[in-house]
Amino acid sequence: MSIQFQIEATRDDARAGKLITPHAVVETPVFMPVGTVGTVKGIPQDLLEELGVNILLGNTYHLYLRPGVETVRQMGGLHGFMSWDRVILTDSGGFQVFSLNELRKVTEEGVTFRSHLDGSTHFFSPESSMEAQIGLGADIIMAFDECTEFPANWERMRTSMEMTARWAARSKKYFEEHKGEVPWGRAHVRPDASIGAGERQLSVQAAELRCAGQTRASALRQAEASRKNPAGTSVSAAGGATQSLFGIVQGGMDFELRRESAERTIEIGFPGYAIGGMSVGEPRETSREVVKATLAHLPKDKPRYLMGVGTPEEIAMYAGMGVDMMDCVLPTRAARHGLLFTSAGKISIKQARYAKDSGSLDPACRCRVCQRYSRAYLRHLYAANEVLAQVLNTIHNLSFYLDTMQRVRHSIRLGEGTRPPSGVSSQPKP
Amino acid sequence: MSIQFQIEATRDDARAGKLITPHAVVETPVFMPVGTVGTVKGIPQDLLEELGVNILLGNTYHLYLRPGVETVRQMGGLHGFMSWDRVILTDSGGFQVFSLNELRKVTEEGVTFRSHLDGSTHFFSPESSMEAQIGLGADIIMAFDECTEFPANWERMRTSMEMTARWAARSKKYFEEHKGEVPWGRAHVRPDASIGAGERQLSVQAAELRCAGQTRASALRQAEASRKNPAGTSVSAAGGATQSLFGIVQGGMDFELRRESAERTIEIGFPGYAIGGMSVGEPRETSREVVKATLAHLPKDKPRYLMGVGTPEEIAMYAGMGVDMMDCVLPTRAARHGLLFTSAGKISIKQARYAKDSGSLDPACRCRVCQRYSRAYLRHLYAANEVLAQVLNTIHNLSFYLDTMQRVRHSIRLGEGTRPPSGVSSQPKP
Repeated sequence: MSIQFQIEATRDDARAGKLITPHAVVETPVFMPVGTVGTVKGIPQDLLEELGVNILLGNTYHLYLRPGVETVRQMGGLHGFMSWDRVILTDSGGFQVFSLNELRKVTEEGVTFRSHLDGSTHFFSPESSMEAQIGLGADIIMAFDECTEFPANWERMRTSMEMTARWAARSKKYFEEHKGEVPWGRAHVRPDASIGAGERQLSVQAAELRCAGQTRASALRQAEASRKNPAGTSVSAAGGATQSLFGIVQGGMDFELRRESAERTIEIGFPGYAIGGMSVGEPRETSREVVKATLAHLPKDKPRYLMGVGTPEEIAMYAGMGVDMMDCVLPTRAARHGLLFTSAGKISIKQARYAKDSGSLDPACRCRVCQRYSRAYLRHLYAANEVLAQVLNTIHNLSFYLDTMQRVRHSIRLGEGTRPPSGVSSQPKP
Repeated sequence: MSIQFQIEATRDDARAGKLITPHAVVETPVFMPVGTVGTVKGIPQDLLEELGVNILLGNTYHLYLRPGVETVRQMGGLHGFMSWDRVILTDSGGFQVFSLNELRKVTEEGVTFRSHLDGSTHFFSPESSMEAQIGLGADIIMAFDECTEFPANWERMRTSMEMTARWAARSKKYFEEHKGEVPWGRAHVRPDASIGAGERQLSVQAAELRCAGQTRASALRQAEASRKNPAGTSVSAAGGATQSLFGIVQGGMDFELRRESAERTIEIGFPGYAIGGMSVGEPRETSREVVKATLAHLPKDKPRYLMGVGTPEEIAMYAGMGVDMMDCVLPTRAARHGLLFTSAGKISIKQARYAKDSGSLDPACRCRVCQRYSRAYLRHLYAANEVLAQVLNTIHNLSFYLDTMQRVRHSIRLGEGTRPPSGVSSQPKP
């Protein structure tokens, strides 16, 4: 079993459903916070659980460089390493080797690049990306693609798209041959129908360890790491659960190339499909049109993942168009810059106008930050460069995003469409 | 009512008791985390509550500079500003104007110094320190003293001690004349016998606000800020509760000067007495002797507060000697440098030896960090300069300190003495 996707309700193009993965069940459409190097910056995992995060994203490029795939593998994969027993998705590293590295050399084989940490030279290919992602052990992993730059002429978009298609086939080949090497061990979490922080079944081994007095997390980690895993041996994980590899559609901003990329990716065959190469500097209206055009070519019965998007209005809009999964650094990165999304618009908390504002950040928000602290305090924390500013701001922005998606899911099920709640706006507050 | 101190058990010189303050009850001996600018760095207040923090310390010097006393006053004092309804103690600013400011001018009147933030010139005196601390509204405030430098010859220790005594009298005079200006409003938390995160009674006004749907914290903040407070008007806080001003004993490392300082401070009369001017570079054995000698001159029926101390072994030792309250930046500051106190000794988590260590940080520790994460993960977070490193390290170190004091209190009540739990050591792990 790798992944199951069940659509339970639709409204126009939007779908509300469940992604059943080896570690947990995820309600869709879903927004995935980014936990770049195995941490959603500043937020402990138990707080992520309380916020209702069921799936988060790890960046293979960053983890490969530090702490390294081997370290993570020995901890039982990312789940064991970061003590997270819900769902993880890793990207392929394809985006960062392009976006973070000016000096790189791209051939049919792969990409040679330099570490942004220490300048050392590395090489990523479809095969090595799969190897890394198998070692990291996320539930969902991504094909190694080339993220086409913007702007690009038609010829460039086409050759890039075609190489992505060839790399997708190589990704799948390597993955199918090696997916048994995932370091999950005999114990991993079985999904069940309940969502959120409810009980999950552990395999017998982990359950025995728990009875012996270990904490759930350390039992899971020990069980996950305990399985011997000689290179090249195809060993199935418990119950036959494996990772799932998603394909990525490229093609720049050309509708026809997008169609062709979709068809070629579907022809190779994946349990889910992502739309990559968006949010690379194109106008917002172009993004919308390209995504809409691409969605039309993706199978309806498989999850559709729009990578790297977006603002609160965008995630609601794209969910309305039939996207099932999205990820973006925006809520967490904006939080660290004191930019907070509220039901009345975006607020820059560092502004002097908030210095003596005793009101809640967002009276309509139920998160613990809005329920407890004043704007004056949040502003003070930011002005004083206090770590708590980053922590509280991130808690709020994540809550805002997760609440937005929760309302979208609810409205799909109720048949009400997916407009964001009235007043939600990413525009700066006047 | 300002403060009540009840000793409930003794064992040799150690006392276990309760400090009953306007906002809450604190079990003693107690260790107070430092929340310099109104935040215990990186830890949200609800997490502090869960860790069992009942009293924290704010630094008047820092808060005076940013965000400023007036801002805090308008938010209902520090309790309202930082949404903390347990106990707060502020220091007088005396220590920082000396320790953070090379360029300063000390006269009988007070201290002229420059802000470390922007170089602007300021002046602190006993009167202005009291004014600031009244505006900040902590439950316990400290007399404005001169922290004698180390080393100092006898003449210098004497003249410094005598000025501290004169400043103590001026502090008390100003405080008694102006304590009614504390910005607590008609609502503040009544203490009750239960300790920890239990229910507390709110005054009628705040209770009504809660019933109207406000959160407890915002109700408290609104109630605290709502009382009009024209300058110079002596208005009692609800139920007559006021702040308490503690005196500080100085005298350098000279036993006779310490005795004289104690007597002169007691002669002025305070509800509690602190031992200041320690941990200024003196040898550890000297600290112990001076504190022991000074304690002998302090009244047994009043709380004794040793400022700026110490390691886990020291806080247990001093509690055994009869100290009731201590504060120190060590657990929080060490945490930010990856130095973690464990039952097997101090660990520097950044060391390469932990890079693949799947074990718990401290198997004997029940904190959420030790219950969930591996040393490898903590080491990775620190190496990657992640904010979560600071957050998790701080949670652990604070838990370690608070658990240490909890065991000390327990052992006093059981009559077992106050040695730290076997194995507790601040020495580096071999």
